[in-house]
Amino acid sequence: MAGVQGSELTIAVSNAGGLGSLPCAMLSIDAMRKELTAIRAGTSKPINVNFFCHEDPSRDQVRAARWRQKLQPYYDQLGLDPNEVVASGQRRPFNSEAAEAIAEFQPEVVSFHFGLPKSELVDRVQQWEALWLETRGVDIIVAQGWEAGGHRGIFLSDDLTTQMGTFALLPQIIAAVTVPVVAAGGIADAKGVAAAMKLGAAGVQIGTAYLLCPESTTGRLHRNALKGKSARYTAVTNVITGRPARGIVNRLIRDVGPIDLEAPQFPLAYEAVAPLRAKAESMGSSDFSPMWAGQNVTGCKEIAAAELTRSLAALLN
Amino acid sequence: MAGVQGSELTIAVSNAGGLGSLPCAMLSIDAMRKELTAIRAGTSKPINVNFFCHEDPSRDQVRAARWRQKLQPYYDQLGLDPNEVVASGQRRPFNSEAAEAIAEFQPEVVSFHFGLPKSELVDRVQQWEALWLETRGVDIIVAQGWEAGGHRGIFLSDDLTTQMGTFALLPQIIAAVTVPVVAAGGIADAKGVAAAMKLGAAGVQIGTAYLLCPESTTGRLHRNALKGKSARYTAVTNVITGRPARGIVNRLIRDVGPIDLEAPQFPLAYEAVAPLRAKAESMGSSDFSPMWAGQNVTGCKEIAAAELTRSLAALLN
Repeated sequence: MAGVQGSELTIAVSNAGGLGSLPCAMLSIDAMRKELTAIRAGTSKPINVNFFCHEDPSRDQVRAARWRQKLQPYYDQLGLDPNEVVASGQRRPFNSEAAEAIAEFQPEVVSFHFGLPKSELVDRVQQWEALWLETRGVDIIVAQGWEAGGHRGIFLSDDLTTQMGTFALLPQIIAAVTVPVVAAGGIADAKGVAAAMKLGAAGVQIGTAYLLCPESTTGRLHRNALKGKSARYTAVTNVITGRPARGIVNRLIRDVGPIDLEAPQFPLAYEAVAPLRAKAESMGSSDFSPMWAGQNVTGCKEIAAAELTRSLAALLN
Repeated sequence: MAGVQGSELTIAVSNAGGLGSLPCAMLSIDAMRKELTAIRAGTSKPINVNFFCHEDPSRDQVRAARWRQKLQPYYDQLGLDPNEVVASGQRRPFNSEAAEAIAEFQPEVVSFHFGLPKSELVDRVQQWEALWLETRGVDIIVAQGWEAGGHRGIFLSDDLTTQMGTFALLPQIIAAVTVPVVAAGGIADAKGVAAAMKLGAAGVQIGTAYLLCPESTTGRLHRNALKGKSARYTAVTNVITGRPARGIVNRLIRDVGPIDLEAPQFPLAYEAVAPLRAKAESMGSSDFSPMWAGQNVTGCKEIAAAELTRSLAALLN
């Protein structure tokens, strides 16, 4: 949910009885502090902060040049100079600075995408997670199915053919581990929540359904796409950020992707995409916009996040 | 399930209260008659017959030659002469001959994979389906998720990125049609059945879980693979038959696939694979064997199909 929400959604979901989350991958340390301050002021309920933990990639100039060359026709068409590309849309991996910054807020749950950060950083987080861990006795695993929107959590392999649908993935992870398993991917409504619990999930993680809530910061073009027919067609693509993520198919994904093995490493691929996106969006076009979404957008409703959270839990107990 | 079962499994499942199916795509008309005769003698319960309904492909000699060239290293290694390739493992689309042959058996349910046959053939089938249709008032759609083993039902598009996981696919098909929808893909046990019903399925279609039943004709190598760790890794591949199907990854899929856009059209790609498969299997190797399976083989049990059928329904009502 990085890029489509801040503290407002977190607060609304936690106050409604869900575990509100704050995606921190695209926030500067200062912005993160600001959001966490707002969250602690807005709710006394437990919250979750989520971080990416990819390795910062080395810059490969040849690969970057080839990538820009591939995108050159779009630059030409939009009248942009590729030499004026400015790094933007940073995705920062979890680091000691971030660990220090969240320490004062002691979020009840800290979750990681793309594996785990270095063990000394995990230890540091677990110092204040100790109470949570002690009372629960456990950590938690999120089983992210093929249906899920956004970046794949996949990190031990690059091979997308290993991706399993939620229906197959969830029970197999549950059988393989002793910690509680949270289901993610394709869960859009109360029936989906109930079905995931039937399969043995300890809980569910839902992103896509919240994208149209007023508390989300989902952009206008993204909102429009979610409300239209184009949202029925998503693909897992690496041509936006360099790492496979599921989003609504736009012109760039259709033309260059969905998968281009020559795209620069995550998150560097985005640097050459960002100017195209900015220019196109200024003209009202989502040709180059990331519009992350899962395979089931039927749960996206323009209702308050609290109402949505309660409706998702309607069939439990 | 074409290739891994005959009448024995159909009879066992129907007698246990499920809707036993007979896959007819790889049966000659005579073989099909023989199986249907055995089924009607073995059970008085309703049965389902399933047909492929692809268009018979035109032979493209250039494409076939390129395909053989690609497989030549394997022919060399196994000491096989590619000129001695004999057509085998036919996949016959539903045709008037088949429609005539099944008429005398009046199967209660006739289902189609890869779209629908020509309308005059559907009409012919529906003549005797009329009673079934009248009392039920409906036809049925099987929603086959990404997780499912075997050939993709996909037929309006070749684009595999459009494939949805069961969790996302099922509720969206249910919302889009008025007929009952049967869930398929990744359903491996009673919890999976219950979850699919929670999502609104009218029923479930299960293949993979039956592959180890004594009534299935699953080959020895396929059985061994299903019992081992390799079955955890399946892929959707077109290098066995020319049409995308999910199976346990073998050497051919790993080396040449999973997807090769130059493979001859379904089912012609198999012609050049068949001799490699036969030779390798004679040496105890599954390097070239189709070993169709879904993404969740944990439900495969070496128990009688009747027992499995009852256990799958254990959480219903």
